[in-house]
Amino acid sequence: MSSLPANYLTATETIALVRSGKLTVTQIAEAHLARYDERDPTIHAWAYMDRERVLSEAKRLDAIPEAERGPLHGAVLGVKDMINTKDMPTEHNSPIYKDHRPNVDAVPVGVCRAAGALIFGKTHTTQFAATTTGPPARNAFDPERTPGGSSSGSGAAVGDWQCQLAFGTQTVGSTVRPGSYNGIFALKPTWGAIGREGLKVLSVTLDTLGLYARSVADLQLLAEVFQVVDDTPPPSPPKPLSSCTFAYVKTDQWQAGSGPSPELERAWAKSKELLIAAGATVKDVELPAEFNDVMPRTVRLMASEGRVNFLPEYMVSKDKLDPLLISHVENQTKISRREQLDIYDAMAALRPKLDAIAGQYDAIVTPSVPGEAWVGIERTGDARFCALWTSLHVPCINIPGFASESGMPIGLTLVAPRYEDVRLLSVASEVAKVWINADEGLLRKTPAPEEASHNSA
Amino acid sequence: MSSLPANYLTATETIALVRSGKLTVTQIAEAHLARYDERDPTIHAWAYMDRERVLSEAKRLDAIPEAERGPLHGAVLGVKDMINTKDMPTEHNSPIYKDHRPNVDAVPVGVCRAAGALIFGKTHTTQFAATTTGPPARNAFDPERTPGGSSSGSGAAVGDWQCQLAFGTQTVGSTVRPGSYNGIFALKPTWGAIGREGLKVLSVTLDTLGLYARSVADLQLLAEVFQVVDDTPPPSPPKPLSSCTFAYVKTDQWQAGSGPSPELERAWAKSKELLIAAGATVKDVELPAEFNDVMPRTVRLMASEGRVNFLPEYMVSKDKLDPLLISHVENQTKISRREQLDIYDAMAALRPKLDAIAGQYDAIVTPSVPGEAWVGIERTGDARFCALWTSLHVPCINIPGFASESGMPIGLTLVAPRYEDVRLLSVASEVAKVWINADEGLLRKTPAPEEASHNSA
Repeated sequence: MSSLPANYLTATETIALVRSGKLTVTQIAEAHLARYDERDPTIHAWAYMDRERVLSEAKRLDAIPEAERGPLHGAVLGVKDMINTKDMPTEHNSPIYKDHRPNVDAVPVGVCRAAGALIFGKTHTTQFAATTTGPPARNAFDPERTPGGSSSGSGAAVGDWQCQLAFGTQTVGSTVRPGSYNGIFALKPTWGAIGREGLKVLSVTLDTLGLYARSVADLQLLAEVFQVVDDTPPPSPPKPLSSCTFAYVKTDQWQAGSGPSPELERAWAKSKELLIAAGATVKDVELPAEFNDVMPRTVRLMASEGRVNFLPEYMVSKDKLDPLLISHVENQTKISRREQLDIYDAMAALRPKLDAIAGQYDAIVTPSVPGEAWVGIERTGDARFCALWTSLHVPCINIPGFASESGMPIGLTLVAPRYEDVRLLSVASEVAKVWINADEGLLRKTPAPEEASHNSA
Repeated sequence: MSSLPANYLTATETIALVRSGKLTVTQIAEAHLARYDERDPTIHAWAYMDRERVLSEAKRLDAIPEAERGPLHGAVLGVKDMINTKDMPTEHNSPIYKDHRPNVDAVPVGVCRAAGALIFGKTHTTQFAATTTGPPARNAFDPERTPGGSSSGSGAAVGDWQCQLAFGTQTVGSTVRPGSYNGIFALKPTWGAIGREGLKVLSVTLDTLGLYARSVADLQLLAEVFQVVDDTPPPSPPKPLSSCTFAYVKTDQWQAGSGPSPELERAWAKSKELLIAAGATVKDVELPAEFNDVMPRTVRLMASEGRVNFLPEYMVSKDKLDPLLISHVENQTKISRREQLDIYDAMAALRPKLDAIAGQYDAIVTPSVPGEAWVGIERTGDARFCALWTSLHVPCINIPGFASESGMPIGLTLVAPRYEDVRLLSVASEVAKVWINADEGLLRKTPAPEEASHNSA
């Protein structure tokens, strides 16, 4: 695998090659820039890309003495363009912030920069990561389709081998959905586990930084860099699937809308078969009724919290603001304080209850999305399956591996109790091994060397 | 009162004079700059002051056509130096951020700037508003004493007539305490009621923007500008005190440490007498035992949430970071995830219970601080009485009016259920009338024209 250009390797693989002197950060940067040049006219993942800045950053990293290099030295990271970066514009896909340079790194960017990551560029987002209108980015597997959103460019860029790691954010389903649509791993950590300063705020109780990668090992590395730790470290080596029990939870959203898609039903059944074949125990579990309707309550809460966060833009440049955000500021959906407080309190009361349920299993398995990525890039898709877990602050990982009849990727989500992110990643590493090539034959190929496995478990 | 220089007027008074053509923003700016020149060598409230910028902003505001002027047109606002401003440095009292210019206004600054406020300068804060080591600012009533913290400069500047309004923040008691120490009104609104983006983050569940003013009317104006609204507007004119019932709540902190100071006991008794004399009903109310120990739990929670927010500074410039913040990042106090989650869940469960208790009264009356401002500026004082209300997200207002034997101001706090901020302000406007000159004779004078009433109810 190491004969492939670096952009086809995972971050973990690349970092090891840099450490052993077989690769320089400049070579890694060049491989990614070549991929960018080849594919950007089709995928449009990037809101900002400055080749000279990338190469000069790579040179700076190469000049760091070995003893002073951080754990991400050589990893290539894309940053969603509503996350502040000190050396690039942060435009939020808003004309109000055209060429805006905040001069400081957001907490997650600062951490990864200090750890030696090569910050590659800014990826397209929906406006302020707060609307459902798609930006120019296109799906890594089919440019006729949405990459999902709001972390559209980050999902597409990692899926298309244009960077190894990327930051998204999730307020409802904006990390997990593009993860599923672009066939990559996506971690929405426990709410609060990673500092959020420097990310544009929509909802203070929901917004969460999300992480994209093409392997669980890469997510584990990022979690380590961010000091995401459980109270009890998971066993090493990971617990074998033959000792694991999984709760299959459809949630009240399974029958919502037009019901489950054929690809979701297929992935659901096949994923079970694969876990069972690996010796795992699988149980269908129905959540108590009090967990119903978290989805619509989450959307109402988001709108109510959004009232305050776009007020300056509303006062100064209302004409340049998405109608959805104007609706938030004007409280057009007429959410009362009573309703807002009732949702706060109900969600808070459900959190320990979900922890208790999830704690009975090695992980909950639940849909990431209702189905494959939608055709067209105007709308970013349906986040209904993600709201429950986001609102209840538990860690979620999208595991890719399945495909629709049209060859588009579809993933499933693993969930654990709050602050068991590291254990969940450990379980995910084993689950990914049996799911990752589940639909290898069916999955559409993105243009890449034959030897490049799209995801490595 | 209008013959006084503008810095001795409240914002509401000044705004009216500008509106009627009797005063220009430039004149207002000049009055405040004169006060600044006179007093800054003693009080040191400001971390950044640029006379030319102030005068040029005033000129810009004077040039705005009358029809386009906002509701704060002519008000003079100080901004705590951990809140981003697009036209001034934001240094967080940290050498890491020396001359740092974030190029964008924090949400509250953007709102007030758009509403026509004259942003006067940046006020001193403890490091990142997250430590208890005092900055250079000194108490408005006695430069030998601390103005409190972390909103040290904001409290001192408003108390010393150097600006009419100021932003603080409160994570435990950092708005209410300087309010009490500097003899001014201080509102910590309901958590989430005002957008927080652009404020340095310490604790995502505790951090709240705080507002300083020298009258309740000014706080009401700010609340209006920020679109802080209750579900039900309070009666106009406000409910008379003769129909009001107040719960006097000492909390478990009353006997903590060395117990209540003589000035607190005195203010407590006198405030009751004054309310009773005005016809109000006053009841001593003890909170159920489950409300005990919120103070130490809040401090633990703050430390656990602080782990993630100073990670970039820790990685890059640990040597320049306050030891307390290093302790947070390294989790030196060994807070487990279990403990963190238990505190989250316990606080969340208490919130609706406190709302229900507070909802039985027109307001809760409770101490703002254990006593007068400490001598010396090294430590910012004791926040023990504020933690409960901050953690439970309810609105609090410090009402000044009382004094210690040494003539230092001491205030009391009014509390209401979450999102009843506007009603609380309405009650506060009536309470302030009977408390405001309670200890007029005893209160030390700050150097000011005789006609200037320090606070106007």
